[in-house]
Amino acid sequence: MNGTLREDAEYIIHEAIKASRPDEAVIRALEGKTFGDGRVYLVAAGKAAWQMAQTAAVRLGERLSAGVAVTKYGHVKGEIARVRCFEAGHPIPDENSFAATQAAFDLVSGLTPEDTVLFLLSGGGSALFEKPLLPGGELQDITEQLLACGADIVEINTIRKRLSAVKGGRFALACLPAHVYSIVLSDILGDPLDMIASGPAYPDTSTCDDAVRLARQYGLRLSEQAWELLRRETPKRLSNVETSITGSVTGLCHAAVQAAEQLGYETMLLTDQLYCEAREAGAFLAAVGRTYRHTKKSLAFVAGGETVVHLTGKGKGGRNQELALAAAEGIAGLPCTAICSVGSDGTDGPTDAAGGYCDGQTKEKLAGLGIRIYDVLQDNDAYHALRKTDGLIFTGPTGTNVNDVALLLIRRDGDRGGASNPS
Amino acid sequence: MNGTLREDAEYIIHEAIKASRPDEAVIRALEGKTFGDGRVYLVAAGKAAWQMAQTAAVRLGERLSAGVAVTKYGHVKGEIARVRCFEAGHPIPDENSFAATQAAFDLVSGLTPEDTVLFLLSGGGSALFEKPLLPGGELQDITEQLLACGADIVEINTIRKRLSAVKGGRFALACLPAHVYSIVLSDILGDPLDMIASGPAYPDTSTCDDAVRLARQYGLRLSEQAWELLRRETPKRLSNVETSITGSVTGLCHAAVQAAEQLGYETMLLTDQLYCEAREAGAFLAAVGRTYRHTKKSLAFVAGGETVVHLTGKGKGGRNQELALAAAEGIAGLPCTAICSVGSDGTDGPTDAAGGYCDGQTKEKLAGLGIRIYDVLQDNDAYHALRKTDGLIFTGPTGTNVNDVALLLIRRDGDRGGASNPS
Repeated sequence: MNGTLREDAEYIIHEAIKASRPDEAVIRALEGKTFGDGRVYLVAAGKAAWQMAQTAAVRLGERLSAGVAVTKYGHVKGEIARVRCFEAGHPIPDENSFAATQAAFDLVSGLTPEDTVLFLLSGGGSALFEKPLLPGGELQDITEQLLACGADIVEINTIRKRLSAVKGGRFALACLPAHVYSIVLSDILGDPLDMIASGPAYPDTSTCDDAVRLARQYGLRLSEQAWELLRRETPKRLSNVETSITGSVTGLCHAAVQAAEQLGYETMLLTDQLYCEAREAGAFLAAVGRTYRHTKKSLAFVAGGETVVHLTGKGKGGRNQELALAAAEGIAGLPCTAICSVGSDGTDGPTDAAGGYCDGQTKEKLAGLGIRIYDVLQDNDAYHALRKTDGLIFTGPTGTNVNDVALLLIRRDGDRGGASNPS
Repeated sequence: MNGTLREDAEYIIHEAIKASRPDEAVIRALEGKTFGDGRVYLVAAGKAAWQMAQTAAVRLGERLSAGVAVTKYGHVKGEIARVRCFEAGHPIPDENSFAATQAAFDLVSGLTPEDTVLFLLSGGGSALFEKPLLPGGELQDITEQLLACGADIVEINTIRKRLSAVKGGRFALACLPAHVYSIVLSDILGDPLDMIASGPAYPDTSTCDDAVRLARQYGLRLSEQAWELLRRETPKRLSNVETSITGSVTGLCHAAVQAAEQLGYETMLLTDQLYCEAREAGAFLAAVGRTYRHTKKSLAFVAGGETVVHLTGKGKGGRNQELALAAAEGIAGLPCTAICSVGSDGTDGPTDAAGGYCDGQTKEKLAGLGIRIYDVLQDNDAYHALRKTDGLIFTGPTGTNVNDVALLLIRRDGDRGGASNPS
């Protein structure tokens, strides 16, 4: 806590995002990990597959026998020793998805109980890592029927998992008798492991009965083969799998908590599951700030998740910028108090900023420029207002995507410089 | 923590409201208070003036020399020994307001430095306790000019305080050389003491310069006498006043925290300044609930303040019911988790309920009845949905009004009965 409030905020954000990068996530998950005497194979799927595979390959060195990685087009950044890299279609799987997945199946067949498959999973894996049990056309037709009849994502997955040789824990079955060590970078709030990339190495919680009931309820038109597949059960237990979620919004938040504590803040994780209107989340955080305005200790509150914005105007901004700007209204006039919010991928909405930063002086600064926060929010134009108060946060593309994190900082002691004054 | 989650919630709410009642507030503020050898006079003004005066008179007994209380029409519930009770106009002051205020001035004139004026203030005092320095017609004209030109409440008060012999700390001046012990029941978030009933016994933060500048800025049409009054300064320090805020949303929240701790919950005050959309506050609290779903200790989170509802439908409900129902979506399926919210006055919106209660089973129960939470919220019809899940909280009129309080309860251990199951 030697810098300005703004510097503290930037430090905490930087540390949180750094800890959530695919490479850091893999390094952390491999720390102290041993793989016995057997061989080690690597399978990586998802938008971050290349970084994850690259980091693991470097760490494993000679221990790695061979690997397959599949990621989006344009995401392979170079060769990786012993790992075959594929680029494939996303969000719609294509022939390259199927070829890469087949290569992974070939890799893990014929293993022994001493062997380990290091399975590196990130968002987007659902399309990139796929081996359908039905012709592509029929699969697509079923998905369209499900969407048309209003089925929700859990219901859609209940059906689709049974039409795939990979999803719903089936890839882990294919690795038997080898052990699977699964490292997951989660892009879904709450880390539902059977949902992330449709859970290739995680027991399925849905059943055949569910699938058949849904198909009847929605009157799906299915071939005999499809009906047969719906009745083929997915694994409910997987004795050969160990899972480590190291990159997720939870990790992002915990890293933020840790960094704030390093700076001397007494820190409280409010939530890592935030899901509400961006501007109302800002108002709530500001209300927490007002409550603790007379604090005797420096306090940091962390709220991670993903807020939503309902467009009412035509301005430029993103959910993080809107959260921060809305909060400026509620903390107006408070000394040594700041609220910021950033997207961990470094891109907030259709802007070049990662998020926004406001403090107790922001409202007054804007008023001095003739700008009312209410009007800016109505026009969804937080970007331009924040640019005028030096309230945009830039990180550049970060290479990870584990949702957003918002901070409320309240400093008890004086501020060395910057926008805030000693309380 | 021997009852159901619902019983815990009701107990905490009951205790919080009880502690915020005018009588309890006065008893607490008078606890251990002595008034030296001088005489003690009582002046009470506001919607809760009668209860506050009655309680103080009983406590003081023979120590009380005389008193004046002024409250709204219909709010005097009986005679109080040694206290003259007035009923007067609210929100527009009338002749009875002025007569009662003059009686209070007569009471406190000619006191000695040994004497004490016990000043009991509650919401509504601005109209009920008034001695204008301008003719009523001109005062009203100025207020209308201010409203018409878009002045905010702080600006309006800056002008109006100078046109009154009572407001802006002037009543305390009139009590000199006697001491003033002021007990305040706050109905405004953040307890701005110079705003509650326009602060008759609190130093004024606004200045003559502010007042004159505003009058010029807005081009107010003022008489010579009014211009003269704007230049007459209000007290910036009051050496004879001691203030105790005992009833307020802060007190409501702290009493809730205490009651939750009594039940064995580890308790966190999130905010006593909540001000955002009711349903989004519910979503935020639910996100906190999901975050701590694996807690090893029983946890209670308290959020007080006053949320708002933007009507989109024609149903029946109130902001507290809407907050609770919205939260039901976010905590759906969580064991031993409940969220409730109540208005401390016992009336939530135009309903006979004080607020609403939901737990992890509420969404499923509603779904079983074919009711979607989203649809209910769109129609602002929380009352009927909650009635079907036994989720309405009834307290009856409570005699106090210190905003709302919301609770999030998460129990670690098993639940004896009721709707929630052990985790």
